[in-house]
Amino acid sequence: MTASDQQINDLLTQMTLEEKISLTIGQDMWSTHPVERLGLGSINMNDGPHGLRKPPENSSIGIIDAIPATCFPTAAAVASTWDVDLAKAIGEAIAQECLANNVQIVLGPGVNLKRTPLGGRNFEYYSEDPVLAGELGTAFVEGVQSYGVGTSLKHYACNNQEFERMTISSEVDQRTLRELYLAAFERVVKRAQPWTIMAAYNKINGIYATEHRQLLTEILREEWGFEGIVVSDWGAVNDKAAALTAGLDLEMPGPALNHVEFLAGLVRKGALSETVIDAAASRMLKIILRGIAQRQPEASYDKAAHHALARRAASESMVLLKNDGILPLQPTAESTVAVIGNFAQKPRYQGAGSSEINATQVDTPLEALQTWLAGQSVEVNFAAGYDHDGNTNDQLIAEAVAAAKNASLSLVLVGLPDAYETEGADRAHMNMPTGHNQLLEAVAAVQPNTVAILINGSAVTIPWLGQVRAVLEAGLAGQAVGSALVDVLSGVVNPSGKLAETFPYDLADTPAFLNYPGEAGVVRYGEGLFIGYRYYDVRKVKPLFPFGYGLSYTSFRYDQIALSAASIDEATPLTVSVTLTNTGERAGKEVVQVYVKPSNSAYLRPVKELRAFAKVELAAGETKTVELTLNARDFSLYDQQRAAWRMEGGSYQILAGGCSADLPLVADLMVNEDPRSARKVLTRMSSIKEFLDDPIGAEILHATAGAFIEGQSASTRAIFEPIPLAKFVNFGFFEASQIDEIVAKVNQD
Amino acid sequence: MTASDQQINDLLTQMTLEEKISLTIGQDMWSTHPVERLGLGSINMNDGPHGLRKPPENSSIGIIDAIPATCFPTAAAVASTWDVDLAKAIGEAIAQECLANNVQIVLGPGVNLKRTPLGGRNFEYYSEDPVLAGELGTAFVEGVQSYGVGTSLKHYACNNQEFERMTISSEVDQRTLRELYLAAFERVVKRAQPWTIMAAYNKINGIYATEHRQLLTEILREEWGFEGIVVSDWGAVNDKAAALTAGLDLEMPGPALNHVEFLAGLVRKGALSETVIDAAASRMLKIILRGIAQRQPEASYDKAAHHALARRAASESMVLLKNDGILPLQPTAESTVAVIGNFAQKPRYQGAGSSEINATQVDTPLEALQTWLAGQSVEVNFAAGYDHDGNTNDQLIAEAVAAAKNASLSLVLVGLPDAYETEGADRAHMNMPTGHNQLLEAVAAVQPNTVAILINGSAVTIPWLGQVRAVLEAGLAGQAVGSALVDVLSGVVNPSGKLAETFPYDLADTPAFLNYPGEAGVVRYGEGLFIGYRYYDVRKVKPLFPFGYGLSYTSFRYDQIALSAASIDEATPLTVSVTLTNTGERAGKEVVQVYVKPSNSAYLRPVKELRAFAKVELAAGETKTVELTLNARDFSLYDQQRAAWRMEGGSYQILAGGCSADLPLVADLMVNEDPRSARKVLTRMSSIKEFLDDPIGAEILHATAGAFIEGQSASTRAIFEPIPLAKFVNFGFFEASQIDEIVAKVNQD
Repeated sequence: MTASDQQINDLLTQMTLEEKISLTIGQDMWSTHPVERLGLGSINMNDGPHGLRKPPENSSIGIIDAIPATCFPTAAAVASTWDVDLAKAIGEAIAQECLANNVQIVLGPGVNLKRTPLGGRNFEYYSEDPVLAGELGTAFVEGVQSYGVGTSLKHYACNNQEFERMTISSEVDQRTLRELYLAAFERVVKRAQPWTIMAAYNKINGIYATEHRQLLTEILREEWGFEGIVVSDWGAVNDKAAALTAGLDLEMPGPALNHVEFLAGLVRKGALSETVIDAAASRMLKIILRGIAQRQPEASYDKAAHHALARRAASESMVLLKNDGILPLQPTAESTVAVIGNFAQKPRYQGAGSSEINATQVDTPLEALQTWLAGQSVEVNFAAGYDHDGNTNDQLIAEAVAAAKNASLSLVLVGLPDAYETEGADRAHMNMPTGHNQLLEAVAAVQPNTVAILINGSAVTIPWLGQVRAVLEAGLAGQAVGSALVDVLSGVVNPSGKLAETFPYDLADTPAFLNYPGEAGVVRYGEGLFIGYRYYDVRKVKPLFPFGYGLSYTSFRYDQIALSAASIDEATPLTVSVTLTNTGERAGKEVVQVYVKPSNSAYLRPVKELRAFAKVELAAGETKTVELTLNARDFSLYDQQRAAWRMEGGSYQILAGGCSADLPLVADLMVNEDPRSARKVLTRMSSIKEFLDDPIGAEILHATAGAFIEGQSASTRAIFEPIPLAKFVNFGFFEASQIDEIVAKVNQD
Repeated sequence: MTASDQQINDLLTQMTLEEKISLTIGQDMWSTHPVERLGLGSINMNDGPHGLRKPPENSSIGIIDAIPATCFPTAAAVASTWDVDLAKAIGEAIAQECLANNVQIVLGPGVNLKRTPLGGRNFEYYSEDPVLAGELGTAFVEGVQSYGVGTSLKHYACNNQEFERMTISSEVDQRTLRELYLAAFERVVKRAQPWTIMAAYNKINGIYATEHRQLLTEILREEWGFEGIVVSDWGAVNDKAAALTAGLDLEMPGPALNHVEFLAGLVRKGALSETVIDAAASRMLKIILRGIAQRQPEASYDKAAHHALARRAASESMVLLKNDGILPLQPTAESTVAVIGNFAQKPRYQGAGSSEINATQVDTPLEALQTWLAGQSVEVNFAAGYDHDGNTNDQLIAEAVAAAKNASLSLVLVGLPDAYETEGADRAHMNMPTGHNQLLEAVAAVQPNTVAILINGSAVTIPWLGQVRAVLEAGLAGQAVGSALVDVLSGVVNPSGKLAETFPYDLADTPAFLNYPGEAGVVRYGEGLFIGYRYYDVRKVKPLFPFGYGLSYTSFRYDQIALSAASIDEATPLTVSVTLTNTGERAGKEVVQVYVKPSNSAYLRPVKELRAFAKVELAAGETKTVELTLNARDFSLYDQQRAAWRMEGGSYQILAGGCSADLPLVADLMVNEDPRSARKVLTRMSSIKEFLDDPIGAEILHATAGAFIEGQSASTRAIFEPIPLAKFVNFGFFEASQIDEIVAKVNQD
């Protein structure tokens, strides 16, 4: 199915310089440039990631209109399922819709981490944790690509806010970059080889992502072995020659034919190497030929089946945050249910921007609830309570209060309006609109049996949590939101979603609060490694709801943990066996979460990090043992001095449970490290202590100045040991040349 | 008294290149190099800052021995007095001791900010706040220099930890650098012109402080108008030519005569400009001649008077943290007082390292208490409770418990042992030794009338706070610690100290916790502007004791605040009048603190910042009005885009009171800003919105594309307004040349 190197070479040699360059720029908004002279067609790429967004034929702008497609739950909602099989199934379904619409590449998934809850595009991203985001992204890519449709892993990298996204520089140290912000990309690239990766708008440490050779070539291709093409985010290229040289292959959108002339001029002047053009064009050819070869002009897809999948995914994604037993609802013929909130009739089920799908159908909560409750002979009172923008007024409140008063219980849908969650703009705060909170409080004041349903794409504050009997986080759940809600509220589906991002009490508690949104063109990632639960853990700040949290209608007991070995090294993976029991009276699913906790690191490390998880279904009373695998990398940190991963030796704990803040199972593990990777790089400015701490350094120093060192009192040693070796030249203990010899010798190995 | 430029020029022209270079390196550990051929002597500089540390004649190393000198309270303790007159008086006294010992420059004060409570040298520094540190540093310098003795303002700059202090790079953005870490230095330099400033060991943003041209020349001399010399911290020079070129004048210590030869060689090769040497030598001559001219070979000083000053300063520095009425002590003839803690007989009253004074006398707490209580016919039981290192054991505890049981009340001295607070090493944690806490809890368990006295140079956790009736923070109070303690405990002195640094509950609550101590040679100041109370304020983290906190034996009522104007601009200072009343029954002193709070900044700014303070004494029942002055700078932030201070317009509040967390007086103020300083710098990559927000930008854009802009719907505008102007070339709205014209025009003014 894929073009051979020979084919590609043959084409390349037949092409003029201009033709080769033309391959690196779109022919229009959504397709690559053809070379008709040689019979080379073009391929189409269109927006994702939670469905296909393709403008109808003859629509030039394509921001407003789109052909119908299944709107699956947003990535944020999919992440709450913690279900890689489901993420893959969604990918497969989207691929079918692409094939049916002659789309060769769908622009997703987005695996950026949620650094701040204010990020306007958080709903398009999975999680605050790179393992969760990376696993789900991998499954999605595998699902799509198994059908011969390509993906675009985006937005590479550190595009964690919309504020000044086209110019801002995300300033982040190499360790944080590797351990957090690149980690999900690395996982997806290495495991699933997405056809394309999308370079982001922003700068990273002062260099535009589209011109970032370290990211696009050194790390992506040379380290991770990426075989696809790098496409720019739409309009993200600023200096095309610099971008091509750095490793970008395709500038989107096109046409920008003056670039062809300009670049050809540079090549002819010798200011840009033709090998750079050849490399990009050759990579482009590979993907274009692959896309063309896998077209299926006759393909169609089963709308009903996709809607059913969207419904299943939505119900699995909902997170039960609070429940005093009122859920699942058990309406009797005598009861009246008040359904309150404009979202019940006009639900938000996706965010705004390039990802906005023209859904094939929408199940509204009100209709779905009415249908279900009518079947139980239960009456439904509806009141809108607030308008499209989230505002309320006395009359709307009065209607809602009346509806609630005259009912046995009230279901209140609140959350974030359209304008709060959109590509291109961050949120201004973490709160729901005042109107939503006012409505909820007014209803709860008259109706003790109040259940809140949250419709939102990222964390919100919940000031009235103590005033309701249950809270169901429904997220932005896609076009089947209404029927999925009924599935969960009625108990047809036992909720199993777990938060993929921490819900804090207050914006002031959030990790990036002191460093967001940045100023003077720079946003400093000053919290470093500590985003999400890593922050709340290390700062001992109690969140409203922790990462990984979610209730069920049944209960689970974690029975035991077993490790395949008491100690491990680089080469041996570790199997963690976790046994758990469904101790309740109905079947349910649980997300088993495994965290690694270093006990005595020489570095500032997170208290614990999610390293594996599995979603498991258990019948009432059933016990299962789940096996998860950890590798060297799961114990490693990025050693900036050596620019290499280091599996730090020492004692660790493996923690397992159903929530980051409740991990009842603990097992001890020793990690044996290769002594070479534990050695520090020693320089002229390394301290005497650093030399003495190093086995070879100690040997050399003792050979050179052993008598002097040993002759000193403890208090004098305390003074000179922190002093860099080179400083002792000034004090007359060493000649400068001796220092150079010592340093050369110690690093010989 | 000072050498004329003519004299200096005459000397300079007579000198050989080697002689000029020799002036830039010490002749030994503590003095400048003479040029005997021309009759030029040398001057001596010795350690401070809370007293004179001078090695006896013929002592080569000078780390261990020192001549006797008055050990005043450490800077950390002086800061708790918030008394600039007292800081000045201490400076005057130290100057007298310098004159009496032929010392021309005393190496202090240290005005680095306390970024983390773990900083090993925090006891040598004043505060977490640059205004408090800068005011006290100014007063000290004025005091010393009024006697014709020079000072050395240190450690310039960002030397905020001892960990890897000789190599680590403090990575800090320009705004934080200006608003926090340089601000105290700036204040002292501009107001008091210290003879010398000491360049620190560390790097700032990758460049050694000793080679940092921006710091040593551009900011220090060109912006602030510094007229003195820059001396290296002892051993801080790594590349002498680079240091001289950057603006360093004097490398210490010497001798390093091979440098003379080496540098002369560079000059002769043309690799180093002789004007660099001339500039440094000329500045050196000015200071050397000034020092020599002001020698007073016959000077002496009054040891008893200095001890009395040390006692007064110590009693003013103590901070009453808790008191349920047990203090002041009112012993009767029937009572027995248990004095517990090895610190009572072997008090710590200063920290370890280069600042360690050989005190002229030491008032131990035990002797002072015994003397006082004997006069009241009160018996004293003493028990050590723990050893020198802070360890205790069953026997020591049993003795202490017995002493406490058999007494009417117990005074327990606990805190930090020598090894915890020393130059060259940071603390490993914020706790007192386990032995101290165990002792306190054992004593408090048997003696309900327990008063804790803390002996420590920086913030500690206080786990047993609820178990004692009073806590007196005695700090590292200098050689009169014992008598000063009696003054405060007995009520002879009414305590008036206020914390100059926040006491948090837990190390995990501290601002730099996520970014300390750094790794791979770099410590990122990731918390930015938010150190000290600025952090606790913005994060809404409750500290154990807030900045500016301290109790009194009397009480004060803040009556009213008045401003000299309702609105201000750049040119007009503002007078703030604060009226307060001593509502108690004894005379006392209060520290009136004035903070500025911006109401609606366009930047991330601290919630409030200390901008002025005054210590005021009030008789019982007395009312006073204190006037404090605020200037433009007190409302300004550092605009990184323009590299200039900006007095941001808008509404502000002026808050006044006796503690950062309790500011009962509030006044509103409008700041009127020069519209030019409010304008953003606009570039090709500024967004359409930034152009439209700028009056001139809006005018130009409307002239160029007004119809297009106005023709768009609100939702389309929301999409294109955040996009940089230059991107519209790609979209065909502008030619590239048009963009350049627009940018040139908008920045014309």
